[in-house]
Amino acid sequence: MSSSDAPRRPATVIGLGRMGSAIASALLAAGHPTTVWNRSADKAAPLVARGAVAARSAAEAVTAGPLIIVTLADYDAVRAVLGTSAADLAGRSVANLTTGTPEDARSMAAWAAEHGAKYVDGAMMALPETVATADAFFLYSGSREVVENERPLLDVLATTHYLGEDAGVAEVYDLGLLGAGYATLAGFLHALALVDTAGVRPEEFLPHASRWLQGMIAYLPEPAREIESGDYSAPASPVGMNRAGLAALVRVSLAGGIDPGVHVPLWNLLAQREADGHGEDSFSSVFELLKRRP
Amino acid sequence: MSSSDAPRRPATVIGLGRMGSAIASALLAAGHPTTVWNRSADKAAPLVARGAVAARSAAEAVTAGPLIIVTLADYDAVRAVLGTSAADLAGRSVANLTTGTPEDARSMAAWAAEHGAKYVDGAMMALPETVATADAFFLYSGSREVVENERPLLDVLATTHYLGEDAGVAEVYDLGLLGAGYATLAGFLHALALVDTAGVRPEEFLPHASRWLQGMIAYLPEPAREIESGDYSAPASPVGMNRAGLAALVRVSLAGGIDPGVHVPLWNLLAQREADGHGEDSFSSVFELLKRRP
Repeated sequence: MSSSDAPRRPATVIGLGRMGSAIASALLAAGHPTTVWNRSADKAAPLVARGAVAARSAAEAVTAGPLIIVTLADYDAVRAVLGTSAADLAGRSVANLTTGTPEDARSMAAWAAEHGAKYVDGAMMALPETVATADAFFLYSGSREVVENERPLLDVLATTHYLGEDAGVAEVYDLGLLGAGYATLAGFLHALALVDTAGVRPEEFLPHASRWLQGMIAYLPEPAREIESGDYSAPASPVGMNRAGLAALVRVSLAGGIDPGVHVPLWNLLAQREADGHGEDSFSSVFELLKRRP
Repeated sequence: MSSSDAPRRPATVIGLGRMGSAIASALLAAGHPTTVWNRSADKAAPLVARGAVAARSAAEAVTAGPLIIVTLADYDAVRAVLGTSAADLAGRSVANLTTGTPEDARSMAAWAAEHGAKYVDGAMMALPETVATADAFFLYSGSREVVENERPLLDVLATTHYLGEDAGVAEVYDLGLLGAGYATLAGFLHALALVDTAGVRPEEFLPHASRWLQGMIAYLPEPAREIESGDYSAPASPVGMNRAGLAALVRVSLAGGIDPGVHVPLWNLLAQREADGHGEDSFSSVFELLKRRP
């Protein structure tokens, strides 16, 4: 039997919200024997119709197989569900993709370890409709063994990235990426409000914004390098110049009758750097005001 | 004589900072007879060595040819320099690429019209090193005639976009794009500070951030469409869910000892939408709080 003919490894998917359902669908489509469970059982029906086995209780789901993939509303729900059969967790692998904080993840990892489970925490950088496409990437941290053993199955769902043994790291990345995305969207919405004051429609502005933000992404290695080195002394874009740019942005927003608020914190940070005598340093040196003090 | 052998149109470049110098260099490289002027004459020397003619005074620069490209520190400087020979502006074309506000641009357009000049205001979406590459795009508004007549020359510098007769529109776009870029960078710097609390280095986080933000850019047409239609009722990403996401981001930032400030304004906007009964609307509906009231 060639490896491509090998029986697919089984998985249990607990939590059938939009992401959990997309994950179970993808596993079924790839031929993995899939057990599913959801608090309200109606979510399981369309998956059962496609070949899933519906566990009749949370405890039955926990004991159904060697790998438990969890996507629930929060970590309290995860502990409640896994706790229905905690004594049976020993030796099983848990991939918890529920969204939470780094501390949630570390605390859950400790709880899983107490019960003898191999635990990996994950962050799904995807939408339900991009699961199992090249647009999805999932970040994992915690048990390296789970990711190594289950990689072919995990790769069905998304590009798999393993970030290290600290179970909290995947959630830290998740929040960091979430924040970077939110900031980008906030800036875009403010820009639409600004150009609206001159009668410019969102769809007219959109291609220019997309192109400009592509350029921003291409520029990110430069601030990353400056921050990594701590050398802000050869800026392409100095603090003082950008402080003036933000001042103009805020002033024109106010003159146009729109809320400048989303830009005020960065303006303040740049003004603070300038007041501290760093006006000629690189823009990216505002990182020094953001980072945790040692 | 074929069109490609036609003599290149002449241009005068006033202001030889980093952008002005890059523009003059690009014109010289493309074979355009180029006159240059800068308040401190030393900036002209390297361009003269490459074939530029140095005007001996601002007034001489203004009268040197049919097209005057201006990149100065601010609009006061533009008016001072053009004003040295205002009576000679009649019939000439001015492309003012100086950074300023929409009102600066409209006021300068009115002044130029009083003196019989054809005036277009421009915004350079480029760095000095990307001038005359595919990465640069310049936005123009004001006199359509200037852009149409000089398009082959302007296309040497960057991709040319003409945005309409209102001379202020290019500056509105410029500020909108600037703001969108600033917000993206602020979010990235905050994310680096956040992942730093878990010992993650900027260059480790960078590829994930780039990939995630590419996805954000791909997503922008959706909020643009929702805002254009005013229909926020079928959200992929509702207000309430994102308000909770931002609350987690702020809470984890504080717990990690880092400044959550750049995310607070968006959090407040989402909370306001939710308080107003729009928690199930699309995220993009915060535009309704940002835009100018009619």
